[in-house]
Amino acid sequence: MNFSSETIENAVEQLSRFPGIGKKTALRMTLFLLKDKPEQVERMVQAISDLKTKVHYCKNCGNVCDDELCSICLSVNRNKKLICVVKEFQDIISIENTGQFNGVYHVLGGVIAPMEGVGPDDIAIAQLLKRVEDDQVEEIVFALSANMEGDTTAFYISRKLEPFQTRISAISRGIAVGGELEYADEITLGRSILNRVPYRVNS
Amino acid sequence: MNFSSETIENAVEQLSRFPGIGKKTALRMTLFLLKDKPEQVERMVQAISDLKTKVHYCKNCGNVCDDELCSICLSVNRNKKLICVVKEFQDIISIENTGQFNGVYHVLGGVIAPMEGVGPDDIAIAQLLKRVEDDQVEEIVFALSANMEGDTTAFYISRKLEPFQTRISAISRGIAVGGELEYADEITLGRSILNRVPYRVNS
Repeated sequence: MNFSSETIENAVEQLSRFPGIGKKTALRMTLFLLKDKPEQVERMVQAISDLKTKVHYCKNCGNVCDDELCSICLSVNRNKKLICVVKEFQDIISIENTGQFNGVYHVLGGVIAPMEGVGPDDIAIAQLLKRVEDDQVEEIVFALSANMEGDTTAFYISRKLEPFQTRISAISRGIAVGGELEYADEITLGRSILNRVPYRVNS
Repeated sequence: MNFSSETIENAVEQLSRFPGIGKKTALRMTLFLLKDKPEQVERMVQAISDLKTKVHYCKNCGNVCDDELCSICLSVNRNKKLICVVKEFQDIISIENTGQFNGVYHVLGGVIAPMEGVGPDDIAIAQLLKRVEDDQVEEIVFALSANMEGDTTAFYISRKLEPFQTRISAISRGIAVGGELEYADEITLGRSILNRVPYRVNS
């Protein structure tokens, strides 16, 4: 594209670095900023800068937070004896949005992937085992992706948990609520038959 | 959405102010920034801030530029006696991208819209007339939207240009190149019949 201002060209260049944002959208964003009030733009710039200076990782679970510990770990209303194990902190946002989980979390920061050189010591497994021991955790729920890396990681951790009296579970896989059987892939459908649950009205 | 960090919540809030960017995309952008290198984020922040401090408007034509005059007005290769009249400076980017125009531009900064309280004195018509007189402009090309406001503005300016010996033209309307007749709307098709041009191979 042909801009008569290097400043605009530079802004478009920078904004198109965002995932899924092309040059045309970046230009639209730039034009929006050009027309925006200076103090509004200043606020956006500050919010972006803050991401690099104010965001910390919870010392207990690895979730993002603004202090030493995250609001979930600090809450007295959460069940500390129930830990949901996730790969990344954004998974916590997804699960929290369901409003269905009252325990706490543990962010591994990755999954075991030998092909990519990620071993058990590269992710936060030792910290999880320490929490299980210190807090006498009663149940671990795996909320990892249903692929080889996710399954390997869950299997590895479950072996490490054997010495403890910890119940181990995993989020259920199956046909999406409202999903049509004929559009479901065979593996999902197969798993949902194997993991069938007792019938309840409105389950 | 439920974030455990106010800083992240704030960034998502700010980024979702962009047109066409929802909360989910804003979250993806925020996560991208969180993982991005600090110096890269610093560069993006600087590029955004610069939009408010470094971008000026060309004193001659109203185009965006980094100096007093834009590169198009400064260029010795452009025909100063041919002015294309546009509503907004982003229209210049579109026309420049075609590589088909060798004249200069004039940004009105709006169109006459009585319903919205925009009159002839609210847009840069007087400046255009001054340029026509000072530079002895030979041709004015209207590149305004084909709606009532655009047509009114073109008509008003054309009346004001009567005392000058200036040719007046407008960009042609018609079926898009590669467009199918059956999908064209009636008004466009009607105009393209009225404004038919002599047949040339590859025209």
